[in-house]
Amino acid sequence: MAVHSSTLFSSPSTLNLFSSHRFHLSPNVSTLHFPRPVKRSDLDLRCSVSIEKEVPETERPFTFLRDSEGGDSQSSSSSSVRARFESMIRAAQDNVCSAIEAVEGGPKFKEDVWSRPGGGGGISRVLQDGNVWEKAGVNVSVVYGVMPPEAYRAAKGASSEQKPGPVPFFAAGISSVLHPKNPFAPTLHFNYRYFETDAPKDVPGAPRQWWFGGGTDFTPAYIFEEDVKHFHSVQKQACDKFDPSFYPRFKKWCDDYFYIKHRDERRGLGGIFFDDLNDLDQEMLLSFATECASSVIPAYIPIIEKRKDTPFTEQHKAWQQLRRGRYVEFNLVYDRGTTFGLKTGGRIESILVSLPLSARWEYDHKPEEGSEEWKLLDACINPKEWL
Amino acid sequence: MAVHSSTLFSSPSTLNLFSSHRFHLSPNVSTLHFPRPVKRSDLDLRCSVSIEKEVPETERPFTFLRDSEGGDSQSSSSSSVRARFESMIRAAQDNVCSAIEAVEGGPKFKEDVWSRPGGGGGISRVLQDGNVWEKAGVNVSVVYGVMPPEAYRAAKGASSEQKPGPVPFFAAGISSVLHPKNPFAPTLHFNYRYFETDAPKDVPGAPRQWWFGGGTDFTPAYIFEEDVKHFHSVQKQACDKFDPSFYPRFKKWCDDYFYIKHRDERRGLGGIFFDDLNDLDQEMLLSFATECASSVIPAYIPIIEKRKDTPFTEQHKAWQQLRRGRYVEFNLVYDRGTTFGLKTGGRIESILVSLPLSARWEYDHKPEEGSEEWKLLDACINPKEWL
Repeated sequence: MAVHSSTLFSSPSTLNLFSSHRFHLSPNVSTLHFPRPVKRSDLDLRCSVSIEKEVPETERPFTFLRDSEGGDSQSSSSSSVRARFESMIRAAQDNVCSAIEAVEGGPKFKEDVWSRPGGGGGISRVLQDGNVWEKAGVNVSVVYGVMPPEAYRAAKGASSEQKPGPVPFFAAGISSVLHPKNPFAPTLHFNYRYFETDAPKDVPGAPRQWWFGGGTDFTPAYIFEEDVKHFHSVQKQACDKFDPSFYPRFKKWCDDYFYIKHRDERRGLGGIFFDDLNDLDQEMLLSFATECASSVIPAYIPIIEKRKDTPFTEQHKAWQQLRRGRYVEFNLVYDRGTTFGLKTGGRIESILVSLPLSARWEYDHKPEEGSEEWKLLDACINPKEWL
Repeated sequence: MAVHSSTLFSSPSTLNLFSSHRFHLSPNVSTLHFPRPVKRSDLDLRCSVSIEKEVPETERPFTFLRDSEGGDSQSSSSSSVRARFESMIRAAQDNVCSAIEAVEGGPKFKEDVWSRPGGGGGISRVLQDGNVWEKAGVNVSVVYGVMPPEAYRAAKGASSEQKPGPVPFFAAGISSVLHPKNPFAPTLHFNYRYFETDAPKDVPGAPRQWWFGGGTDFTPAYIFEEDVKHFHSVQKQACDKFDPSFYPRFKKWCDDYFYIKHRDERRGLGGIFFDDLNDLDQEMLLSFATECASSVIPAYIPIIEKRKDTPFTEQHKAWQQLRRGRYVEFNLVYDRGTTFGLKTGGRIESILVSLPLSARWEYDHKPEEGSEEWKLLDACINPKEWL
């Protein structure tokens, strides 16, 4: 899983896009383009290292795919999945943002569009300090990169006869974290992503592979059992359309993934999560990811409508803020996409938009046994079957 | 630097005590003793694994050293440094806490004392939501443990003839983070620690070594040049009493260590930092660490007295909270003591008392060029010589 520093890599540049630890990518971009105090050594660095920067764009392009991928790609079916996946995540971004703005009733998303000269790019949308959400981020991105052959061979267990060399890849994903203001309204996270390795043209029979990953999970500060059942039942419905084994399998995967080891707690009440799926029909998995992304609004918005105006006290807010602290701990310490993005130089503002607007850490806080706060903590320590 | 899971280890159990990456310790303790929802599998686990737990104590013992270390230790001079170092850090804890309580004018520290059956223990003191500080933690701890021989041999470059086997060690330290409420009053961190490896009795000529580490650094949200000069000049005075090369060397080490790589910023305006010092006279380094710890109050309290009641706006507070977010990022992502403690199961509440009571993350925040916020950011990006 080592990374060749001499190889050209691309950066994820969207929160949680690359949660797979299979791909250890290193960026060839500098990351910050807003005006800020200039580092004295920046100019020297740029003279000695070839850095491909993200370029801000004033308009959203029709597609972030490379020009060649309309028709003359090596594999039209593969190219078609790329194109359809990009369409799907961009539609999902539009739909989720519209649904949020409708609930907000005034405040709108701020959009940042960017691209890379070699292909790929992304759209980051953030609504901050709204009426209902304190921070809502919905990002899509498309990345072309090259990964070291060991990473691919380790993943595939390919034979050593194969000619080693960097393996080009394609990745696209949508990722979103929505933190409401009201302590009775839950935080939502969802992320759906698609990877492909390209076949180098001069290597007959060289590896070509694809993977899907993603999930939708939610993080309330207080348990309303009807909300938890509603959320999980929508996830189960989406899963059951494809395979009755999906919901139990991906529900458990979710509980296992969003685990704050040093606390022995999950960050929230779960949902579904899957990664590295490639042992099922590709078209089926594309439809499944599409169904999951389409389920975000019906799973989440009705809960928000019900809870957004619930009266609350300072104590309720303080508990929500403490749970936000746990969210920060998970994302900065454990989340693969975040920790990977931070270490390799993804677009920091896109990666860290997943963090709440505010969070709190009290020393040795202990909810009173049997209290509502205690019940939430208990459910984070002992994941339950809600359905 | 691999860790033998079969060897008996001890946990740091104080924030930032083990900032040296030389020692990769793994705990043999469970960490949380306050009442909380019980994990169903806990009882099973405790039946299959021998876990040495921290034990809460109702009173502070005279010493956390093992009984045998009064006189019949292998090395009386070594034992004496242990004992004198423990006395020094406990006196420093008392003095710093008294100075803080004097400024607070009412609110007092809450104290937790704990020990381990096999020797060692600690005192955690936290003052939360006071008049002047939102969170002030001052911890001391003494740890007896065993480290894998590779860790020691790698560190020492010892010859392979030496009989391999776990190396017992001793560690003691004081660690403190003080977060004031007023956005014009700086956060302070200091930490002084002492390590020893023991000579196994049955291995003639086996390795025996000691190290000192530590530092004092501060993190304002706004620059008052007179405060920064005062703080650094007190550090320099402490250094200059021992060696004129110390201040420039340890000032740079501090700037290099407290670096948030993904932001290309330091978390604050530095101070002094050193680690793994063992190539100087042991008595001199004990005196130096003592002098540094004694310099905390004169370096910091006058600044607090001057700034604690400065009127401020919501904007000032929001900027302080954003910088607190950076503090959280550094501590959770980079700080060796914290990340190591989280991964190996140190006492979580002691480790994370370093986090502020509250912190904030705004998407794509850009201070206006030339503003006071911009000046602070510039100094975090481009460390300055203040004296």
